[in-house]
Amino acid sequence: MTNPVLVEVMRGSIVESRHRGAVAVADAEGRDVLALGDVTIPVFPRSAIKALQALPLVEQGAAARYGFGDQELALACASHSGEPAHVAGVERMLAKAGLSPSALRCGAHFPISQAAAAEVARAGAPSALHNNCSGKHAGFLCFACALGVDAAEYFRPEHPVQRQVRAVLEDFTGAVLGQEVCAIDGCSVPTWAVPLKNLALGFAKFGTGHGLVPERARAAARLRQACARQPWYVAGTGRFCTEVMQLLGERVFVKAGAEGVYCGAFPEQGLGIAIKCDDGAGRAAQAIMAVIIARFVPLEASEQAALAPYARSSLQNWNGIEVGAISVTEAL
Amino acid sequence: MTNPVLVEVMRGSIVESRHRGAVAVADAEGRDVLALGDVTIPVFPRSAIKALQALPLVEQGAAARYGFGDQELALACASHSGEPAHVAGVERMLAKAGLSPSALRCGAHFPISQAAAAEVARAGAPSALHNNCSGKHAGFLCFACALGVDAAEYFRPEHPVQRQVRAVLEDFTGAVLGQEVCAIDGCSVPTWAVPLKNLALGFAKFGTGHGLVPERARAAARLRQACARQPWYVAGTGRFCTEVMQLLGERVFVKAGAEGVYCGAFPEQGLGIAIKCDDGAGRAAQAIMAVIIARFVPLEASEQAALAPYARSSLQNWNGIEVGAISVTEAL
Repeated sequence: MTNPVLVEVMRGSIVESRHRGAVAVADAEGRDVLALGDVTIPVFPRSAIKALQALPLVEQGAAARYGFGDQELALACASHSGEPAHVAGVERMLAKAGLSPSALRCGAHFPISQAAAAEVARAGAPSALHNNCSGKHAGFLCFACALGVDAAEYFRPEHPVQRQVRAVLEDFTGAVLGQEVCAIDGCSVPTWAVPLKNLALGFAKFGTGHGLVPERARAAARLRQACARQPWYVAGTGRFCTEVMQLLGERVFVKAGAEGVYCGAFPEQGLGIAIKCDDGAGRAAQAIMAVIIARFVPLEASEQAALAPYARSSLQNWNGIEVGAISVTEAL
Repeated sequence: MTNPVLVEVMRGSIVESRHRGAVAVADAEGRDVLALGDVTIPVFPRSAIKALQALPLVEQGAAARYGFGDQELALACASHSGEPAHVAGVERMLAKAGLSPSALRCGAHFPISQAAAAEVARAGAPSALHNNCSGKHAGFLCFACALGVDAAEYFRPEHPVQRQVRAVLEDFTGAVLGQEVCAIDGCSVPTWAVPLKNLALGFAKFGTGHGLVPERARAAARLRQACARQPWYVAGTGRFCTEVMQLLGERVFVKAGAEGVYCGAFPEQGLGIAIKCDDGAGRAAQAIMAVIIARFVPLEASEQAALAPYARSSLQNWNGIEVGAISVTEAL
């Protein structure tokens, strides 16, 4: 099956590039509310499921034991921009469990934030703390410490931390996550490929607690609350996930993943969402998510206006001249 | 028509992302040697035609008048990485025509080279000299000075420089470039959408001189020679265009454009090449170009070995672990 063109990039009056993809919206019973394109083949959710990867940390009491507040929990779910307060927050998470940044195994990269990257370049070189995944990794490390297991190899699929993460993913999505759908993520932890319809189901459960044991439902609600209260810590200045959750609070949970993935939950509607662009384009996945929010979540006029520039974003060149636009197609 | 999947991005044993596209290979008579996907719809070649944009500068004697050598001519055709010698070369071009960098209208961005970007961040902020198009813009400015026209608005479609560029593009490609296919490029100059088959024809003529008036054919040969002699100035350290032309010299001319475009010429085979990935992915266009070179240009075993990692490139994560690969499909 060939997925439909969902997003077009215009330059002047001509379509310069096209993005195909698939979208699943489901309720917590797994009923398809929207299934556009092939929602049954396994896709790697990458960072879009960080909130599910952070769930054991909360559910089993490690987050409470180390006194994690909203900022720390949001960082555990984050692909942060490596801005100074993100880095300080991750250091704080590690310190609360008596760990140093040298325990992080995510690898180093320059901050996503260009301003932060320039600062890091001025001062020296980036460290693992600047990696957008460092909050997730700090969460894994703290969870390992609370479990009382050797934390050194926390990133390996056979480590108790990753085995528990896998069990949580299977519980939420209903998918069986065997070796054949396992690969290695950019930050070295395992990533399992899951069909979009199962990811949508998983996020409907994450948003509502339906179908989860009570302590798991409470952990999900706590993570959603933390992200809604501290959305800057989930991404960073000017980024989509941050701005959407700043705008809509607990009404929308949204999280980007690499290679054109978004997952999200609309708790009041009882819906979960999973998006994948065939070609891995984040610019397209973001536009799709903006349109899906506008379609399923009742919005005030001011909220609609705030979201509109994401559904149709102006393309500007290096001189700030508008040269085109990125917008969703009629298939949506 | 739906273009075929030409490149797959694997993570572990699963296809994570897919890139569709079209490829045209033609001779200087416009005969299709290869037409994969839709090669008849207009696409913006963007920076892939910088050598054609630089042609009037050489053909009409401005390059000789200002004493441009191989490095300056390569920079006029370049999407350079903003490394120190690129920046110095562009300053030199401007100085030879008595111009200062403040005349550049390409806009500023951080160097493509991460090392150079870090250096620029340490020292301050990027300038228009660091813009990957600054050599092309310096060429436009010098051409305007040699024409004796006011250079200030050299980037506008109605300026004599851009009108001459458009006439050259029409002569090479055989396409009529009206207002309806004109848009603004990232660096503010006009860009005209041209069908891939016409771009392939244009580069077959660029590579062979067939079908061009003698002074135009000589200018094309001079630019190819300059790029082959100084390929580092066409892109930069570690980049595909540079490495391919370092490897194969005048046997292959190759140039990337934004949004998943490559153009090239195989002079000995009399062929021109034009590639566009539907979704704008440069990673895919590069893999396709590597395969097209290997298919049409007779290569030594060592040259084949040097090119192979571009046709199938290893994907490594932040810890240097191989997590997947980018490779072309059987459609190629």
